[in-house]
Amino acid sequence: MFSPVYLDHNATTPLEPAVRAAMLPWLGEEFGNASSRHEYGRRARAAIDEARRQVAAAVNAHPTEVVFTSGGSEANNLFIKGAAAAMKPGRIAVSAVEHPCIARPAAQLAAAGWQVDTIAVDGEGRVESAAFATALGGRPKLVSVMAANNETGVLQDIPALAAANRTGGGWFHSDAVQLFGKQPLDFRALNAAGVHAITLSAHKAGGPQGAAALIVDKRVELQPLIAGGGHERGLRSGTENVAAIAGFGVAAELVAGRAMASGRLAELRDRLERGLLALGATIFGAGAERLPNTTYFALPDLDGETLVGQLDRAGFAVASGAACSSANPEPSHVLRAMGVAPDLARGAVRVSLGPANSAADVDQFIHALRTTAGRLQGLTAIAV
Amino acid sequence: MFSPVYLDHNATTPLEPAVRAAMLPWLGEEFGNASSRHEYGRRARAAIDEARRQVAAAVNAHPTEVVFTSGGSEANNLFIKGAAAAMKPGRIAVSAVEHPCIARPAAQLAAAGWQVDTIAVDGEGRVESAAFATALGGRPKLVSVMAANNETGVLQDIPALAAANRTGGGWFHSDAVQLFGKQPLDFRALNAAGVHAITLSAHKAGGPQGAAALIVDKRVELQPLIAGGGHERGLRSGTENVAAIAGFGVAAELVAGRAMASGRLAELRDRLERGLLALGATIFGAGAERLPNTTYFALPDLDGETLVGQLDRAGFAVASGAACSSANPEPSHVLRAMGVAPDLARGAVRVSLGPANSAADVDQFIHALRTTAGRLQGLTAIAV
Repeated sequence: MFSPVYLDHNATTPLEPAVRAAMLPWLGEEFGNASSRHEYGRRARAAIDEARRQVAAAVNAHPTEVVFTSGGSEANNLFIKGAAAAMKPGRIAVSAVEHPCIARPAAQLAAAGWQVDTIAVDGEGRVESAAFATALGGRPKLVSVMAANNETGVLQDIPALAAANRTGGGWFHSDAVQLFGKQPLDFRALNAAGVHAITLSAHKAGGPQGAAALIVDKRVELQPLIAGGGHERGLRSGTENVAAIAGFGVAAELVAGRAMASGRLAELRDRLERGLLALGATIFGAGAERLPNTTYFALPDLDGETLVGQLDRAGFAVASGAACSSANPEPSHVLRAMGVAPDLARGAVRVSLGPANSAADVDQFIHALRTTAGRLQGLTAIAV
Repeated sequence: MFSPVYLDHNATTPLEPAVRAAMLPWLGEEFGNASSRHEYGRRARAAIDEARRQVAAAVNAHPTEVVFTSGGSEANNLFIKGAAAAMKPGRIAVSAVEHPCIARPAAQLAAAGWQVDTIAVDGEGRVESAAFATALGGRPKLVSVMAANNETGVLQDIPALAAANRTGGGWFHSDAVQLFGKQPLDFRALNAAGVHAITLSAHKAGGPQGAAALIVDKRVELQPLIAGGGHERGLRSGTENVAAIAGFGVAAELVAGRAMASGRLAELRDRLERGLLALGATIFGAGAERLPNTTYFALPDLDGETLVGQLDRAGFAVASGAACSSANPEPSHVLRAMGVAPDLARGAVRVSLGPANSAADVDQFIHALRTTAGRLQGLTAIAV
């Protein structure tokens, strides 16, 4: 089987072997419904309880603050729609660079009478202070700003933004899906600063697809998105996916180690970016604090989609635009919000490194990119 | 490890070995995000496409009618809330014996201006014709009646109910989670009779927890419950759980075989019920058409919860009330709707058989029940 070098860890990550080991019993001799009151059910419940402790411990939260969901998109929708449904309509403020699973549920609230304020970002992708102050002036009942952007890796100063929001009294949520497993996360400290909820996802951090969590301050009243049997303290009904949740728990135990490896990733990323700059690349958000593993760049006059396709054939798996909405070929809304010219934005390619990547991977990628870009630019020159 | 005889297949089922085999690669060397446009992503997308064909084929639907979700509760909520959000408020009619993941989202609609009509059932748990006609007289925009009840196993005559609904023009949905894998399901035929959507779940039919589907007529306009990256034709955003979906596909291929084994299950069930009747049990819904694997009974003056706990210690895993809401110790709403006296309802115990169960399992269960009941009745006599 042909296995390209994987450089797309912001899209999804390989399963950690210890995660797989924790999941396998639940796909074999163990198979209980965690709500069942017999031996099979009790064992399933114990596995979920253990995972809840592991996830809580990984982000310094209390286990009762963990609401398991099927994915980050569900957790984000649960917060946005669930909190909104528990209040009279008002204003909701979200940054211009949120993932669609924040932006679209916010847009859906408009039909229910909410006003959606989009908070502008600067040229590096950071929330603009003046725009944020203006949004807060509208006394939003809900605010959501992501901790780290999936495309650029740009970090927002969440404690400062949350602190500024405190006088208004609205709930402050942060989509931390891309931060989890790459940098330390301390919900207790964030909560003290004014953050009421964060979203985590297992499969972005060595865990399985199908498990994620909303970590939420219990003062936040939420209506369930999925109502039914009353699982997850009534906030998320449905038979628990025990295998995925057990895997999430072990992945959460491993995130401290992943975050400690961030220095090594940053060195690899810098090596990559030196190579890219030598090829004349523009690196988006390079002036901001960023995740240690993410580089988002464009080469002059080259289409990102084409480049990704050619690099795939050359044995390198990278992304153009946001992988989660790659079904949609529009230029990146993140780059648009950053004021990047559409021609340059269409060239955007994302490399997101993971623990298994090496300096050799980076060097070979740069070599392949030089060759591919040279050929494509030659073709372009001929076509002109 | 102590492994009781598993007699709780309506709660969840052991994974079929072929399902596990189909999942394992996606928890190891394969790990792509199905939206990624490189080799890893394309392989993940191909696995999901294949599963979609398998699930569609299993219920005679078209692959484009399959919307994958994380579970049956999510699929039911997607239909109820998603269809309602695409219309002006009106009436919704649901049967009195629906699972909470239909009844509660329907109740949530009341806050949005909907009127919820609950359709009464008869003493056997079948939707009452007169009550159904009255509900239809209100011109409901949405109707949901389950195909088979999770507690009693009682079947509703879905084609006849859907046909009666046609003149009103509302969308007709049926939660078929408990029917799938136990009896044949033909969405094309149901659709021709006036059924617009059905819900299936993998883990009730030898597949994994974490994968399910809403099979839906494309004329039904739905707002997504989980909005975001636009997965599943925009109806359900979020990175797909490839392992669980691939497992669901293989489980769907096996349901025809499971349904063919229903004659054998019915014989075991009849053997069980002969034993229960000899112990003086009341069997709920016995006068109605039922699933071949389900027996819901009570013994005089015995508490169901207590009995389930004692049987568990004796090595038999059975349920009291609906397993999916066992967190909630209220007497069964299904039995209440059937007019069962509360004292008798509190004694309810469910046995739900599966392909691996044998006549010996049934005989040993009856023996253990006789012993346990005798001891408990003796204790009761002493206490009185």
